[in-house]
Amino acid sequence: MLEILSASEFSLGDIAAQLGGDLIGNPSTVVTRIGPLEGATPSTISFLSNPKYQSQLAASQAACVLVAPSMRDAAVARGSAIVLADPYLGFARLTQLWAKRTRPATVAGVHPSAVVDPTATISEGVSVGPLAVIEAGATVGEGAVIGSHCFIGSNACVGAGTRLSAGVTVGFDCHIGARGIVHSGVVIGADGFGFAPVEGRWEKIEQLGNVRIGDDVEIGANTCIDRGALDDTVIEDGVKLDNLIQIGHNVRIGAHTAMAGCVGVAGSATIGKHCQVGGGAVILGHLTLADRVIISAASVVMRSILKPGQYSGVFPIDDNAAWEKNAATLRQLHGLRERLRALEKKTP
Amino acid sequence: MLEILSASEFSLGDIAAQLGGDLIGNPSTVVTRIGPLEGATPSTISFLSNPKYQSQLAASQAACVLVAPSMRDAAVARGSAIVLADPYLGFARLTQLWAKRTRPATVAGVHPSAVVDPTATISEGVSVGPLAVIEAGATVGEGAVIGSHCFIGSNACVGAGTRLSAGVTVGFDCHIGARGIVHSGVVIGADGFGFAPVEGRWEKIEQLGNVRIGDDVEIGANTCIDRGALDDTVIEDGVKLDNLIQIGHNVRIGAHTAMAGCVGVAGSATIGKHCQVGGGAVILGHLTLADRVIISAASVVMRSILKPGQYSGVFPIDDNAAWEKNAATLRQLHGLRERLRALEKKTP
Amino acid sequence: MLEILSASEFSLGDIAAQLGGDLIGNPSTVVTRIGPLEGATPSTISFLSNPKYQSQLAASQAACVLVAPSMRDAAVARGSAIVLADPYLGFARLTQLWAKRTRPATVAGVHPSAVVDPTATISEGVSVGPLAVIEAGATVGEGAVIGSHCFIGSNACVGAGTRLSAGVTVGFDCHIGARGIVHSGVVIGADGFGFAPVEGRWEKIEQLGNVRIGDDVEIGANTCIDRGALDDTVIEDGVKLDNLIQIGHNVRIGAHTAMAGCVGVAGSATIGKHCQVGGGAVILGHLTLADRVIISAASVVMRSILKPGQYSGVFPIDDNAAWEKNAATLRQLHGLRERLRALEKKTP
Repeated sequence: MLEILSASEFSLGDIAAQLGGDLIGNPSTVVTRIGPLEGATPSTISFLSNPKYQSQLAASQAACVLVAPSMRDAAVARGSAIVLADPYLGFARLTQLWAKRTRPATVAGVHPSAVVDPTATISEGVSVGPLAVIEAGATVGEGAVIGSHCFIGSNACVGAGTRLSAGVTVGFDCHIGARGIVHSGVVIGADGFGFAPVEGRWEKIEQLGNVRIGDDVEIGANTCIDRGALDDTVIEDGVKLDNLIQIGHNVRIGAHTAMAGCVGVAGSATIGKHCQVGGGAVILGHLTLADRVIISAASVVMRSILKPGQYSGVFPIDDNAAWEKNAATLRQLHGLRERLRALEKKTP
Repeated sequence: MLEILSASEFSLGDIAAQLGGDLIGNPSTVVTRIGPLEGATPSTISFLSNPKYQSQLAASQAACVLVAPSMRDAAVARGSAIVLADPYLGFARLTQLWAKRTRPATVAGVHPSAVVDPTATISEGVSVGPLAVIEAGATVGEGAVIGSHCFIGSNACVGAGTRLSAGVTVGFDCHIGARGIVHSGVVIGADGFGFAPVEGRWEKIEQLGNVRIGDDVEIGANTCIDRGALDDTVIEDGVKLDNLIQIGHNVRIGAHTAMAGCVGVAGSATIGKHCQVGGGAVILGHLTLADRVIISAASVVMRSILKPGQYSGVFPIDDNAAWEKNAATLRQLHGLRERLRALEKKTP
Repeated sequence: MLEILSASEFSLGDIAAQLGGDLIGNPSTVVTRIGPLEGATPSTISFLSNPKYQSQLAASQAACVLVAPSMRDAAVARGSAIVLADPYLGFARLTQLWAKRTRPATVAGVHPSAVVDPTATISEGVSVGPLAVIEAGATVGEGAVIGSHCFIGSNACVGAGTRLSAGVTVGFDCHIGARGIVHSGVVIGADGFGFAPVEGRWEKIEQLGNVRIGDDVEIGANTCIDRGALDDTVIEDGVKLDNLIQIGHNVRIGAHTAMAGCVGVAGSATIGKHCQVGGGAVILGHLTLADRVIISAASVVMRSILKPGQYSGVFPIDDNAAWEKNAATLRQLHGLRERLRALEKKTP
């Protein structure tokens, strides 16, 4: 007799098949939740990717644990396991299975309240949410999702399968590639910040470039990517940007670089591929970062960095009284060095 | 004969009655403005909460001053006064009286241009503004206000009396408690920033948790609160968040904690109750802050803080030339310490 | 016979006439692109404003170069030139010519999907985009552009010729002057962050002031300007604000001051005229900055600055290992100074 599972019930057999892992345990065991080892219940599926959490494995109540081959015996000693080469990747794919099954499917079609210019191209399978606006000449690729209240400017282009949450703005002539995810409040293609000083006031330099975003790019809520001054601002394939990030005009971000929230990148910075930028970091304009550079959170990049590696620059936090004394002394630091030098000369 | 006051005219008698204070002066005196002691006119009501401004009291032209009992005599010597235990709280309540009377009342009802799914629950007295979208299964509690262009995702829940300004996004399944205030551009429930690295690219970890926000929470313009990865992101009762703040996935913020603008809190940080975080501060992920911790503006919290108190870490600003010399020396600081040690050894 | 140029084709004669420069070369030569000297093609018009790029001049393929009188001979030696007193200003005006001719003109009129209160004043030549909302008593000046999904609150005022991109929020009673540019996602007039502490919780101080913005102000995407607590928040004429900036309640920004992205200005700060604030800088509340103060990127202003000049305060970035050693030593810096003093006393 067929067992009917509800949307949020998954059998271990089904999971193992979809993840391509080796199941040790009963394939018909059902789990209803993904969770960390600690706090897992007998209906939880968990994972062990970092060996430092191995001590939690034996004690975990999880119905099943995704593990690497090296952890197979330890995992099986306590219950079911799915063995895969990369359990963290397995976990990521497991969340994707979950999301696909438990979230309401998007329905294709243009909501009657949306305002879509007749010259826009809306491909097959596209969903345009209520009260979205799509202007003249814009193109939305197959299966893309345009959320409620989105604005797609004239001649802009959203690639196939890309999903825009509610309230995304894509300026005229800007391009987003395929399979992207753009969260609410994102502004793509506002003017870059460019002015010529003239007799104490600022004369606007019109920003004539666009924004070109590659495939598989994710952009977090309320992040801004400005259009270029003359040439384009470019975000290459696979880049991941978190929330509230500012990308200035004519920045180029190399493929598969990831930036955490609140980062600011000033105009014309060129950032390599596979870089990681921690939250709140600031990268000044016209700099170059090599591939595989890692910038620690809240650090300020004031010069180009041409060698891969991790770079940091943060004032260490301390109790306020200690900080006050050290900060005050810091303002005399150069003088202290001179005094130290003088002493060194005097001391044989 | 009844005196008719316009919306922005208040009699001292009325104010004293509503604030529960002791009026010394003519109850029918009318004020039309709240203002600081300095610059107050004879139609201004003012307040003295900080004794350091006492010198301004005698000279102030204010019609009436809210004061603590200890200031009663000094206040009365110059004109009318309302005596209350906590004059700053009195001032806050006075602004509330003013706002209630001078701002246009919100009208209950759903604007005909709003797009509300028939399966959404809209309670009594709710106001839904023009061009708002409320999706299937969402719930809006009694007397709540949903501003223009707001988006309430499927099965999301907005508590009774909560007010959303224009253009707020509440993602599917997210919950906001009662009596909250959410300003324009806020994004609640965008995906947390989670990816598994795989062969040089990033595999998305779907964010399966939600956002749960307690009662009496205020959230400033364009602030983002991400949904949790597996469990929920939690904002407890009475929390106050200013503008442009980023709250990562699975953060927990304890009750009555306040954060100023531009703060970034990385994923899975746990922040205690009654904390205060200054503007532009950054709190790294997976850290714990005890109750009643105060973080100074622009400081970076890189380790857990388990004791109440104030903590700071900011490079002191200086004229640029001095900063350059000190910053350059700072890059040799560890070496300077070694040289100092060597000298100490040599010096008897 | 009349030559018909397409929208993006400009003759040198036409450009020289419009910029008021002196053309040396064939007035009927056509250019189709503005670009830097390096990489310029024979259909590019370029400019030389900074003498340090003079070496690029001789080698450039550009059809024509905007230059200062002192560069005339060098420019003419290689091809056409337009000589003007300020070539960078000439470049700015050139981008304006380009934008005016190549971008689709805005059409006056109110889109039928916009929701405009009958008591709002919509002046001549105004364009109101699809799904915008304009509330009771609001005023929109001649020739202004209100983008899609904008919200103009009751009694708010948008000056003549001011352009709001899609999705701008202007709160009730707030004023923007003439010829402004406001980018998507900007929130003007959200509540300032004001609370009175009372028994461990926060009592709201209603924000009764407004926002007053002068003429010729540009505001970048997702920037927030809060309304004042009692008096107004004021942005004077000609101020330029980049993206994701936070301006707290009762801040005053002097005329022609410019701020780069991600700056935070806390409540009641008073900033002079002609200041420049670098990206990511933080200015604490209740401070004063004199006219013509320059704050370097990511610096934190913790005290008033009363003298013009450039000020900085940033921890220098370094490779992570070096930073860790120096940062750890920094926490002992005050003690190091004491040890140095002791040594100095001992050393004759």
